[in-house]
Amino acid sequence: MVDVAIVGTGHSKFGNRTDVNLQELAWEAVKQALEESNLDQKDIDMFVVGNAGGWSSEPLSAIVIGEYCNLAPKGTMRVEAACATGSAALRIAYQAIKAGDAKIAMVIGVEQMHQSPNPVAIEMMGRAGNYFWEFENFGLTFPGYYALYATRRMAKFGMKEEDLGQIAIKNHYYGSFNPYAMFQKQIKMDEYMKSRVVAYPLKVYDACPITDGAAAVILASEEVAKKITDSPVWIVSQGFKSGTANLSKRDDFISIDAARLAAEEAYKKARIDFENSWRYFDVAEVHDCFTIAEIMAYEDLGFAKRGEGHLLAREGQTYIGGRIPVNVDGGLKAKGHPIGATGVSMAVSITRQLLYRAHKGTQVDVKNGMGIAHNVGGTGHYAYVTIFSLKKPSA
Amino acid sequence: MVDVAIVGTGHSKFGNRTDVNLQELAWEAVKQALEESNLDQKDIDMFVVGNAGGWSSEPLSAIVIGEYCNLAPKGTMRVEAACATGSAALRIAYQAIKAGDAKIAMVIGVEQMHQSPNPVAIEMMGRAGNYFWEFENFGLTFPGYYALYATRRMAKFGMKEEDLGQIAIKNHYYGSFNPYAMFQKQIKMDEYMKSRVVAYPLKVYDACPITDGAAAVILASEEVAKKITDSPVWIVSQGFKSGTANLSKRDDFISIDAARLAAEEAYKKARIDFENSWRYFDVAEVHDCFTIAEIMAYEDLGFAKRGEGHLLAREGQTYIGGRIPVNVDGGLKAKGHPIGATGVSMAVSITRQLLYRAHKGTQVDVKNGMGIAHNVGGTGHYAYVTIFSLKKPSA
Repeated sequence: MVDVAIVGTGHSKFGNRTDVNLQELAWEAVKQALEESNLDQKDIDMFVVGNAGGWSSEPLSAIVIGEYCNLAPKGTMRVEAACATGSAALRIAYQAIKAGDAKIAMVIGVEQMHQSPNPVAIEMMGRAGNYFWEFENFGLTFPGYYALYATRRMAKFGMKEEDLGQIAIKNHYYGSFNPYAMFQKQIKMDEYMKSRVVAYPLKVYDACPITDGAAAVILASEEVAKKITDSPVWIVSQGFKSGTANLSKRDDFISIDAARLAAEEAYKKARIDFENSWRYFDVAEVHDCFTIAEIMAYEDLGFAKRGEGHLLAREGQTYIGGRIPVNVDGGLKAKGHPIGATGVSMAVSITRQLLYRAHKGTQVDVKNGMGIAHNVGGTGHYAYVTIFSLKKPSA
Repeated sequence: MVDVAIVGTGHSKFGNRTDVNLQELAWEAVKQALEESNLDQKDIDMFVVGNAGGWSSEPLSAIVIGEYCNLAPKGTMRVEAACATGSAALRIAYQAIKAGDAKIAMVIGVEQMHQSPNPVAIEMMGRAGNYFWEFENFGLTFPGYYALYATRRMAKFGMKEEDLGQIAIKNHYYGSFNPYAMFQKQIKMDEYMKSRVVAYPLKVYDACPITDGAAAVILASEEVAKKITDSPVWIVSQGFKSGTANLSKRDDFISIDAARLAAEEAYKKARIDFENSWRYFDVAEVHDCFTIAEIMAYEDLGFAKRGEGHLLAREGQTYIGGRIPVNVDGGLKAKGHPIGATGVSMAVSITRQLLYRAHKGTQVDVKNGMGIAHNVGGTGHYAYVTIFSLKKPSA
């Protein structure tokens, strides 16, 4: 089977980006990725656009981007996996190369959520479950979904509001060093505790923002990668799983089952021991759409035992120097969460970390040369876990 | 590389299907495909949902379908390539198996366009190009786009309105034998000529309808396919290309460039000579969203020389018994065009034709054991061309 490497990365400034249109936003990331890899549009065999859509008035975002970025007439498609859209786009390009049908593929993740007024943007997020039954009939919204998990875990495991606050504080801390982050401002526990409650116990500072942004990576087959770069970052494996649409059909509210299953799949292919998984990685990007989601991610990825995720946060074990540095680019919380871009942004962050190209103040020590990205769509409706390495997987 | 076969097919009744919801509609096709292949949901490694979306109030259609069809927690994603969405879904599953990451994959194409009121449905179709510039500023709509091609070809090649009528008459003729077709009614030339003009020269009878429907295929690796069926239909190759968003950036209005390029790519991989391509195939499904699109497809696939596509129609060469039977399931024109389902429906029709399981009155003679599907998104914004065969491609 063909090994696949990341050979170029690009990232736009995340934030309120109504200064540009969708295709201009995508181009900021595409241009950077082309320059970094020293490639030209004509070298790209295909491109995939991760764009959940609905916020922009352009329904054919892949095509509009293809024309503007001069990627037409290359083959393309747009993919959606809710908030895991970017990882789904990565998957398609990865498999096209693995299957031998492309040598070089461009993955573009982009979302411009401020194209819609905020109430529309928020209603659309709320629909990211079972619209008809749980949203329309019971009025459950997105913060409400995650609040169910947070209250259950507070009752069962003794997790405190302050534990959630630790996640917000850490991610805002690292976001302050990331020039691409939407929020580059550190926060303190008292600010966190005083912030407005959205859905108890989740407060404004527990939630990621509505964001515009783009990220891009260029993938290449081993044969090509070796010719064009001396610093490939390999995709070792990816696991992907789904969950029921209705949360009422879930067994409990203490973990994101789909994410745990996706991690198990990725670990199995990469021969990683679940219990000791954190020993394999130098850095992790996890899906902190709400702070509670990051705490569950620790457990779903095997970084902490079930019920002990919040202790990792309490002890500061996910800062640089701790057990495993997590979301040291600011995470969704501070960097922002432009839906379609997030999964691709995670791949960009991991790649740059492994190559010692991270922003000042955020660089981890690279010992094992491996990183992991955990990207969840909806409330565990989709989950994608991807493992990256400086070492070729088939070596 | 792993060879990939279709081992099961399913198809819902196409039409106004507000008698069911989106997931129930999908299930009609999924159930049939599982039964035909003698497989159970637990056997499926992953599923891909082709659903352009926007008409239904459920944004996470793949997840809602996954829960209802009991496919969760298998990995999934939703893909969109405008009217070629179904073929994009097929591509993702095909490549996952080819890449060795799945053994059995389910492809579901579904759209329930009547969930939105007709003016909304039609506006959304109109946006399938460059919304901001050509739709919003110039008022171009979907029939208008294709009318540009029709008038240009009438002026340049002497094509008559009656030539377009021949396509409508043929496709309605075959649709009358297809119990799954939205329209099962034959039409005559005088009815065609009297039908209301939508965008000259295109009339109501030149246009495919707004349709609800679902189709599904199950793909398997060679190893698995051989165990579960004695009648696999192999995917030989697929070409996919894109076009500019703005029609004002196209060179001319006589052919769908992306489709021709996609055909060339598919033919190259399958070692098919473009000039004589029609000699290789027993049956073709082409994208007749408007009658003019079918005529251009004849040329873009090499069935007729450039400028002579309408002569094939005039001479009745695309009926069963002619040069090459095209759209003998009724095509988009009579069978209907539920956006996300269409490409998958094409794969179902070709598979059943090659296996002598077509509807009475529509079965072609199978001599070479090969078929081709041509699926276009927008006005050549996307194009996917797929080749199917009774013979294993690597044999």
